[in-house]
Amino acid sequence: MKEKATIRDVAAAAGVSAATVSYVLNGKKKVSEQTRDVVLDVIRRMEYVPDLNARGLSIKDTKLIGVVVPQTEPGSTLMFRNNFYSEILGSIEFHARQNGYHVLISATDVTEDYLNLIRERNLDGVIIIGTYQNEFLSQLNQLDVPVVLVDSYCKYDWFHEIRIDDQKSSYMAARYVLEAGHRKIALVSGILHEDGVMNKRFKGYQEALADFGIPYRPEYVFEGNVDYDSGVDIAGRIAREKVDVTAVVATADIFAIGLIKGFYEMGIRVPEDISIIGFDDLDISAYLTPGLTTIKQHISLKGERAVSLLVQNMADPNMAKVEEVLPVRLVERASVKRMEPEKRR
Amino acid sequence: MKEKATIRDVAAAAGVSAATVSYVLNGKKKVSEQTRDVVLDVIRRMEYVPDLNARGLSIKDTKLIGVVVPQTEPGSTLMFRNNFYSEILGSIEFHARQNGYHVLISATDVTEDYLNLIRERNLDGVIIIGTYQNEFLSQLNQLDVPVVLVDSYCKYDWFHEIRIDDQKSSYMAARYVLEAGHRKIALVSGILHEDGVMNKRFKGYQEALADFGIPYRPEYVFEGNVDYDSGVDIAGRIAREKVDVTAVVATADIFAIGLIKGFYEMGIRVPEDISIIGFDDLDISAYLTPGLTTIKQHISLKGERAVSLLVQNMADPNMAKVEEVLPVRLVERASVKRMEPEKRR
Repeated sequence: MKEKATIRDVAAAAGVSAATVSYVLNGKKKVSEQTRDVVLDVIRRMEYVPDLNARGLSIKDTKLIGVVVPQTEPGSTLMFRNNFYSEILGSIEFHARQNGYHVLISATDVTEDYLNLIRERNLDGVIIIGTYQNEFLSQLNQLDVPVVLVDSYCKYDWFHEIRIDDQKSSYMAARYVLEAGHRKIALVSGILHEDGVMNKRFKGYQEALADFGIPYRPEYVFEGNVDYDSGVDIAGRIAREKVDVTAVVATADIFAIGLIKGFYEMGIRVPEDISIIGFDDLDISAYLTPGLTTIKQHISLKGERAVSLLVQNMADPNMAKVEEVLPVRLVERASVKRMEPEKRR
Repeated sequence: MKEKATIRDVAAAAGVSAATVSYVLNGKKKVSEQTRDVVLDVIRRMEYVPDLNARGLSIKDTKLIGVVVPQTEPGSTLMFRNNFYSEILGSIEFHARQNGYHVLISATDVTEDYLNLIRERNLDGVIIIGTYQNEFLSQLNQLDVPVVLVDSYCKYDWFHEIRIDDQKSSYMAARYVLEAGHRKIALVSGILHEDGVMNKRFKGYQEALADFGIPYRPEYVFEGNVDYDSGVDIAGRIAREKVDVTAVVATADIFAIGLIKGFYEMGIRVPEDISIIGFDDLDISAYLTPGLTTIKQHISLKGERAVSLLVQNMADPNMAKVEEVLPVRLVERASVKRMEPEKRR
């Protein structure tokens, strides 16, 4: 590696003072256009790296990572209504910082606009959380920027991917409830998109029922936005419509937390009257009394690995695509009751 | 991928200066309609994407707002361990987006490094949450960038400030507990910094005790990091050391939530055995059963006002400094028990 040019080298070569070079770069004082052109020419020739933004001009390194967090509704602030996102973002920010990067967050719908953003900001890499349309991913693939998808089942081998085995994890949750003797089991799920994690979790639930010889009943499946309010609402519906279930498999802890509150408000106790198992093991799930039995995924590790893959790929543009499937485990607390055998019908 | 067109390529092809291309793009100076049409034509033809980072070099407008979130411990991911921060950041991101800005988040300690970051990234404005040393604020004041402090009691008239009346709000909390008949009341607080909100809340607690003729007892004051784990720990200490209190004023909901869990683990029930009042009214405080009585501050409004002041100031660099004190209210739920008169000693 050759010696890096300093501002003094640039100033000397351009025949101006270092201060003038600064002014050209930061625009804080007026410099004649002629001087400006000379200085910018020297800067390019010497590959001088003056500062983070200027870096973005000539060599592709802005020290900026974009993170896309989905919104459940356009034009809303819902970004953090599911703590999963604040937990993973906290981890991404931390590990990016450790690697000398800053994080630009966007809750925009991922569309053409975001592609422009990546170009305009010269982002060094992008972490995309959740599922987006193949058309968008295909356009994203045209851009020459490392991308890590978190929690997506992209059909194509375009990007790095980090996720858990959602179907198997959901199967574990449903099997646990079945093994505790429950037979009438609702599923509370986010909207079922084809390549999304919710669809996989739905399949895991169906698979577990089938393995226990329990017929699948569509009227036991409740879809909603993945947030607390949906959980409260769905608990209200289950209670008012007297849906005949003894347990609920929630595909997200934030649902489970809302369900517990919703049932509580209807005078239905967890786990005495109805059992609930969650999915995620959010920090806030530990706040509940009694605790939530749930599938623990290592959310902060997802963030850490996403940053690590990006940084690796930025150093080695020809790096092969990596798909990482992180482990999960079931955390047994107190929200699922064992059914007495005679009630297992 | 073909080479990206630069502003200089566009300027050359259009036969104008790079500055003129800038003016066409940002409208900061008038350009003849004819020149404008030529430039826009070339831009379209060359598929030139203006570089927002480069824009920051010459004209002071990067469409980038920096948000500084304090860490409770250096080198940790604690940024979001208090949901207050994820809630206010969600609001800031949303309102920034509505105004065409992106948000650069940093959990760095605010030091010299951050001053460099502001300069290097040419941030258009900065929102700083929490309390920092006067020396840093003084240096920040040297930079020519609009700043809004959220939840700080800066002695100087340097920046816009948004906060609540922390002392009065805390007084409200303590008075509520006193009016419910409690006389032995602990305070659980963040570290008491001179110009910080915690210090004001501490004073509000002392003031309420004084108004009720109750002597202040330093052994009833517990300081810790403002997070859930500290709440759990402090509850454990109060229980093990048999600290003789019947109620706790928590200066943050996240403390209250940890306290409830910590007491629960020690077999102490809220509110039957001990009463707790919180501060913030986080979204997650609603998740608890029974609910937390607390001081509700309008967290998302804090974020909205911070963005709004920045945007105003960016449009009008000579704008006078604004100090906004937002209202709070007490939300009565079920975590504070009324004491029978004979127990009020």
